[in-house]
Amino acid sequence: YGKNTIKFLRLHKEGKKHFVKEVEVCAHLRLTSPQEYLDGNNSLVIPTDTIKNIVLVLAKKNGIPSLEQFAIDICNHFMTTFCQVAYVKTYVQEVPWQRLHEDGVPHVHSFICVPDGIRFCEAEQCRNGPLIVFAGIKDLKLMKTTQSGFEGFYKNEHTTLPERHDRILCGELFCKWSYGECKDFDFDCIWKKIRECILEAFSGPPDCGEYSPSYQKTVNCIQMLVLSRVSQVQVIEVVLNNTFYNVVDMKNLGLTNDKEVLVPVEAPYGSCACTLGRK
Amino acid sequence: YGKNTIKFLRLHKEGKKHFVKEVEVCAHLRLTSPQEYLDGNNSLVIPTDTIKNIVLVLAKKNGIPSLEQFAIDICNHFMTTFCQVAYVKTYVQEVPWQRLHEDGVPHVHSFICVPDGIRFCEAEQCRNGPLIVFAGIKDLKLMKTTQSGFEGFYKNEHTTLPERHDRILCGELFCKWSYGECKDFDFDCIWKKIRECILEAFSGPPDCGEYSPSYQKTVNCIQMLVLSRVSQVQVIEVVLNNTFYNVVDMKNLGLTNDKEVLVPVEAPYGSCACTLGRK
Amino acid sequence: YGKNTIKFLRLHKEGKKHFVKEVEVCAHLRLTSPQEYLDGNNSLVIPTDTIKNIVLVLAKKNGIPSLEQFAIDICNHFMTTFCQVAYVKTYVQEVPWQRLHEDGVPHVHSFICVPDGIRFCEAEQCRNGPLIVFAGIKDLKLMKTTQSGFEGFYKNEHTTLPERHDRILCGELFCKWSYGECKDFDFDCIWKKIRECILEAFSGPPDCGEYSPSYQKTVNCIQMLVLSRVSQVQVIEVVLNNTFYNVVDMKNLGLTNDKEVLVPVEAPYGSCACTLGRK
Amino acid sequence: YGKNTIKFLRLHKEGKKHFVKEVEVCAHLRLTSPQEYLDGNNSLVIPTDTIKNIVLVLAKKNGIPSLEQFAIDICNHFMTTFCQVAYVKTYVQEVPWQRLHEDGVPHVHSFICVPDGIRFCEAEQCRNGPLIVFAGIKDLKLMKTTQSGFEGFYKNEHTTLPERHDRILCGELFCKWSYGECKDFDFDCIWKKIRECILEAFSGPPDCGEYSPSYQKTVNCIQMLVLSRVSQVQVIEVVLNNTFYNVVDMKNLGLTNDKEVLVPVEAPYGSCACTLGRK
Repeated sequence: YGKNTIKFLRLHKEGKKHFVKEVEVCAHLRLTSPQEYLDGNNSLVIPTDTIKNIVLVLAKKNGIPSLEQFAIDICNHFMTTFCQVAYVKTYVQEVPWQRLHEDGVPHVHSFICVPDGIRFCEAEQCRNGPLIVFAGIKDLKLMKTTQSGFEGFYKNEHTTLPERHDRILCGELFCKWSYGECKDFDFDCIWKKIRECILEAFSGPPDCGEYSPSYQKTVNCIQMLVLSRVSQVQVIEVVLNNTFYNVVDMKNLGLTNDKEVLVPVEAPYGSCACTLGRK
Repeated sequence: YGKNTIKFLRLHKEGKKHFVKEVEVCAHLRLTSPQEYLDGNNSLVIPTDTIKNIVLVLAKKNGIPSLEQFAIDICNHFMTTFCQVAYVKTYVQEVPWQRLHEDGVPHVHSFICVPDGIRFCEAEQCRNGPLIVFAGIKDLKLMKTTQSGFEGFYKNEHTTLPERHDRILCGELFCKWSYGECKDFDFDCIWKKIRECILEAFSGPPDCGEYSPSYQKTVNCIQMLVLSRVSQVQVIEVVLNNTFYNVVDMKNLGLTNDKEVLVPVEAPYGSCACTLGRK
Repeated sequence: YGKNTIKFLRLHKEGKKHFVKEVEVCAHLRLTSPQEYLDGNNSLVIPTDTIKNIVLVLAKKNGIPSLEQFAIDICNHFMTTFCQVAYVKTYVQEVPWQRLHEDGVPHVHSFICVPDGIRFCEAEQCRNGPLIVFAGIKDLKLMKTTQSGFEGFYKNEHTTLPERHDRILCGELFCKWSYGECKDFDFDCIWKKIRECILEAFSGPPDCGEYSPSYQKTVNCIQMLVLSRVSQVQVIEVVLNNTFYNVVDMKNLGLTNDKEVLVPVEAPYGSCACTLGRK
Repeated sequence: YGKNTIKFLRLHKEGKKHFVKEVEVCAHLRLTSPQEYLDGNNSLVIPTDTIKNIVLVLAKKNGIPSLEQFAIDICNHFMTTFCQVAYVKTYVQEVPWQRLHEDGVPHVHSFICVPDGIRFCEAEQCRNGPLIVFAGIKDLKLMKTTQSGFEGFYKNEHTTLPERHDRILCGELFCKWSYGECKDFDFDCIWKKIRECILEAFSGPPDCGEYSPSYQKTVNCIQMLVLSRVSQVQVIEVVLNNTFYNVVDMKNLGLTNDKEVLVPVEAPYGSCACTLGRK
């Protein structure tokens, strides 16, 4: 198969008000015949330059109503236009431009980049198969400064980690879910709702939080909340890259450090991941 | 001289409410004698491990009231404790953790990383000289989708750039200013005010913006507005890394692209910088 | 499942001569029960800290005879020690330290980092299943300045790419192969042989090269040569990330550029990949 | 001032043999008048697009005889062509393509990227001032596994570092030197000679090495050797970014670790730098 990446900006005006979407699109194609590889016969090959042109033309003609709809449009175009395409997957990722505000007033054409979690989606289809849509958020960095511990784990002669009932829980979240063969969803609205579920399940109630006995359990809580609140989600995968913090031992500096000063531990660097679907 | 970097987290509680600052501190030291280099005589050398301990102990004892005050504290400690130090500079940079909110309610101990411009500061001092404080913002990405052009530039036989009166202005901003020998400033409040000045000068009025004839002029507008509004600023340096966007020519694809689809131009990649002070 | 990464250096002496291996090890584990996720019951969880200790202890006891043997040792340890482990995969990657030479004389204890292709391997095993070993090379950047073209590809109304019979072929190669259930191979020797096959298949004969009609065909040539020369390889996957170069059009600068000055094209950025096994 | 970066490839043939240079050029210009900043008057501004064209045209016309000569050519062009230029600095950096060899036979047109230290240079000139040339090497990673210690350093109540007489010395070297107002040097030959001096001074004799009492002293040894061996060098700056390795304490794992297994220490991360000239 082959894939390629194209980055561009789609601008749209309503009166004096500007709307901007900057996206990175990656298209994967697999052809029905491997003759390009085996024989050096290029007659079925769709050059990356042509793929780029198609993506730009679709953006010009249809705009980007939502990332998901744009990914679906690209899939459909390749499947209906090129009979030599056996499989197509399109990945679309957004540069998180947000409208600037001055004293609460939105600006007509100025934007700031706020990367507090990157939105992406995927659409994929095999010839004669259904078109499946995924969406997700990545690079979302979260931290809880208490209500997290790690106790009761398996121990043997290689265990040196002490049990902890009040540690920092910090990590970078990757979350991807499947909508199945979706139709006419309000993708923007659902995405925002899921992002809120993630933050709520990670944090717990604002006045007291909720105790997390492990990164794994927090991953599961996020999945359970999304599945229970958002009926359109079929399967949800969550990966949490852990950043551990150690309380600095200041005894030989003559001080008692009551979880006030902590340093990130670079190694071991871990992550946990889980994929959960509906029964 | 030598420098080193240490990253840590300072946690502080008021009742159930947690406050967190994660910072990266870089300390540069120059000693009065170069004997460590010339003779391999280490007797005056302050190991990076000791510097790390000092930074952590100061954070434990004083907390981090503001980045600037913490940088000042470190400078003062080195100058008063080590007579072999001829010069010290401390750079402090913040990881942009923000408190999470659920339906508008702030969470007592959960945070999200929002890197829409990174705050940093510097304090530097030569022995017997004044302590100078700088502050700044970096990695601030801004875009104006109109009210920007570039015309009337110098032309010769190597010129191929067409004049443009309606282009995209996009870039990554670095801004650093000097407070001089400051005393008792509310550094957090001033920093926020300067950030607002930068956004306002970049964007212009929210209902119509303001025409920018060049990146250079926009840089100057930012400097002028900060100097006029914030009396504590002595000198201000602005660097704007330009990201250019080209309108895609779709003529040979049978379409008219009226500044709707644009691609970023990777090369040449430019920047303009200017330092401006008071008379 | 969970994974974690640990980086360390293994030093070994023979008389005055030092040998150094610096590796990054990543271990993925999946347990027989998901109770840690579902119930927050940690009683079967092997902490990342314990995994780190095991890896370091194995390195201390056995050394790193080859990357592959070390990966196998780790897999075996987890499978035989922990009955709650259902699946284990270990990835080992080498920092490419090479012995320094002075006027052809090898230095007893000085090394230089030469990252012209990074060696890695993987070993994976399901409980009651065979242990499978993979090896590979990544980040290998190669360029042919002629004997490459791209012609006869599929064309339609979105095609703007001209045919080219003398272009630059440049890319970053990723190559990974399976040894099946290997026993007692000389992994170091085989790896070097495969690296030479890759370079030879990419380049062709030193006096004239060999024409490549596409990136895809070059990928296939590499696979075919490795499979024909190295009997231990069962399956081989090659990914080639293309860097395209355009001849700069200098007509409006009054010059004829006969493929002398070229600029890299950042977008579209493509890659092609293929996996090939024995019949 | 403004600067911009352009990356390109210069191809040159002698019969069937190809020669390739891929470089990144960065040009800084300062104009005699700041009117572009103050008044938005662009009439003296040389667009980055024009600068790019000039660099490419010079590469086409003159080739790249050496990085240094190319940097000098660009400086000269700007100074003699544009009377509004008050200052110009050009930085040129090379992508380290090396000719491939098959069984010792050099290939006519195939290359591999070997980044074991990146060569760069700078040329700078003020109007009516001399043209100064610098050259250097960066990203050169070196390691000594013995013959390095750190003892007899300054101690006080914040000191926790133990003295060590047999540690790992590892770091990334940056080295930049000035040729003064050079004329007709064989820049390629001198650069290679200096690289050898750096490696020799870092390592010591191949059969036994030479004891380094500190990173600082190693920096100084490199400078002294270069200045003594290469008369064309006027001033030399060396920065050594230290990577520290700690011997893993395996006592509570029941093992004695005799400097066999070490882990890199991420923080504090330090560097030492020194600039040395001739009397």
